[in-house]
Amino acid sequence: MKVGVIGLGLIGGSIALDLQSQGHELYGYDKNPIHCEKAVDFDLVSKILPIIEMTHECDVIVISIPVDIAPMVLKEVLDHINWNVVVVDTGSTKKSICAQIATHKKRSRFVACHPLAGTEFSGPSAAKKDLYQGKKNIICEEDKSDSDAVELALSLFRSIGMTNLFMNPDDHDKHMAYVSHLSHVSAFMLGTTVLDIEKDEKQIFNLASTGFQSTVRLAKSSPETWSTIFSDNSDNIVDALNSYINHLSAFKKAIEDEDKETMKSLIQQSNEIKRVLDGMKYNVVKLS
Amino acid sequence: MKVGVIGLGLIGGSIALDLQSQGHELYGYDKNPIHCEKAVDFDLVSKILPIIEMTHECDVIVISIPVDIAPMVLKEVLDHINWNVVVVDTGSTKKSICAQIATHKKRSRFVACHPLAGTEFSGPSAAKKDLYQGKKNIICEEDKSDSDAVELALSLFRSIGMTNLFMNPDDHDKHMAYVSHLSHVSAFMLGTTVLDIEKDEKQIFNLASTGFQSTVRLAKSSPETWSTIFSDNSDNIVDALNSYINHLSAFKKAIEDEDKETMKSLIQQSNEIKRVLDGMKYNVVKLS
Repeated sequence: MKVGVIGLGLIGGSIALDLQSQGHELYGYDKNPIHCEKAVDFDLVSKILPIIEMTHECDVIVISIPVDIAPMVLKEVLDHINWNVVVVDTGSTKKSICAQIATHKKRSRFVACHPLAGTEFSGPSAAKKDLYQGKKNIICEEDKSDSDAVELALSLFRSIGMTNLFMNPDDHDKHMAYVSHLSHVSAFMLGTTVLDIEKDEKQIFNLASTGFQSTVRLAKSSPETWSTIFSDNSDNIVDALNSYINHLSAFKKAIEDEDKETMKSLIQQSNEIKRVLDGMKYNVVKLS
Repeated sequence: MKVGVIGLGLIGGSIALDLQSQGHELYGYDKNPIHCEKAVDFDLVSKILPIIEMTHECDVIVISIPVDIAPMVLKEVLDHINWNVVVVDTGSTKKSICAQIATHKKRSRFVACHPLAGTEFSGPSAAKKDLYQGKKNIICEEDKSDSDAVELALSLFRSIGMTNLFMNPDDHDKHMAYVSHLSHVSAFMLGTTVLDIEKDEKQIFNLASTGFQSTVRLAKSSPETWSTIFSDNSDNIVDALNSYINHLSAFKKAIEDEDKETMKSLIQQSNEIKRVLDGMKYNVVKLS
């Protein structure tokens, strides 16, 4: 199969790596010429092709670019493909891309996807083999895609080790605001708060434990990627942040009052996350 | 050397394990009889001794109990030891214990310590060999301890793989509020916020990525330990939380305005934490 990947960063690059190792022919495109060079050097793809050529050459096209420009590029791709080509995206928000492409005459050749995987690194050098192994892929509005296109998307993500789940775009964006986007805001601002007060970085370095490293890890993530995700999913993330800030303020009140019983009970509620995380480790849910 | 460990949880238990493997004789005490049983079963200590007997039998006593009761137990221990015995603690706050013990006639036999290590687990079953390897230990008010006592504390923590640093109790508590205690509040409330909205735990389970797991990991930590730390260091943690909430609110404003440029610039500031964390990995600071 000939696969074209538009956007050769962490997400697109890692998909390319896995698919290439299965024997597929991989073509790539990135608007950043340095990313194009690196993608070939790192053997993520065998050749760089402009988007229009890619639409004529490939059986599948994977779009892995920031969510604010993805709808525009998706339209351009759909405009040029033949009816046998399948296009998938990998964006972290699904409502706006689905809405913006709703009336396109080739809408049915597109499958809206979100593979839930990543690291705090970015660019082609962050591409990682088996990044998707054991992870989940969300497919939205599968009823608006042709069944052969959905089948191909399911098997593509299954072939790189993922379990597929179906969800509507509204629910997807709301859930992601809580279980992913909020963690990023929380880590970014934790990093800033500590840097702000600890002008002497050697102190942070000396005193920070592995606990701090774990909590702040996501603060290394890309400004470009995350500012567009936050902007695109703003209503849901603002709701999540309001709830988070309210919980923090309530906990702060208990600390101000040195009210250990209230703190204990609030921490016990939070400890419930253990059950969920422990379940996660065993990855017991198989949905498709 | 005969070492007594009071408090046989994660911290005390892990010290006992490492010291026992060096050939020292380890005695233990915990007010929870089940912890005592387990500590012997897991071979953290060879024998359980009541505190008074321990003060007569041991050369060194390590106090690893919640910070609200540590000063009281420390006084009791100092009351009964001979002048050749050294007592260290491992508490996460240092100001209140140093203040409460300041006028004790055997103050100079005590060395106030805080080994910066831990996991999100607790109790004797959480004790872990080599937990302290490559980590830092903070010693406070070393000028108020006899020099032989400080020497012994330095070599004890060095023998389990730690680098020792000196700091005054006020600075210690202030820095820890930012680089450790705040991470815990942030993780606890992130866990609660997500559990609060996601009534269906299967959704969290299905959608949460490794990023969320990493950010929320500390939310599994012990209510008893952390409510007493927060209470004991309340002023500093409230300052840290005020600053954190202000940063979160400013970031929320940028999201509400869908102001990508402001978000990008705030994320870039936060990305600076990379440099600090990367330095941490190589553990280049050697102070004693």
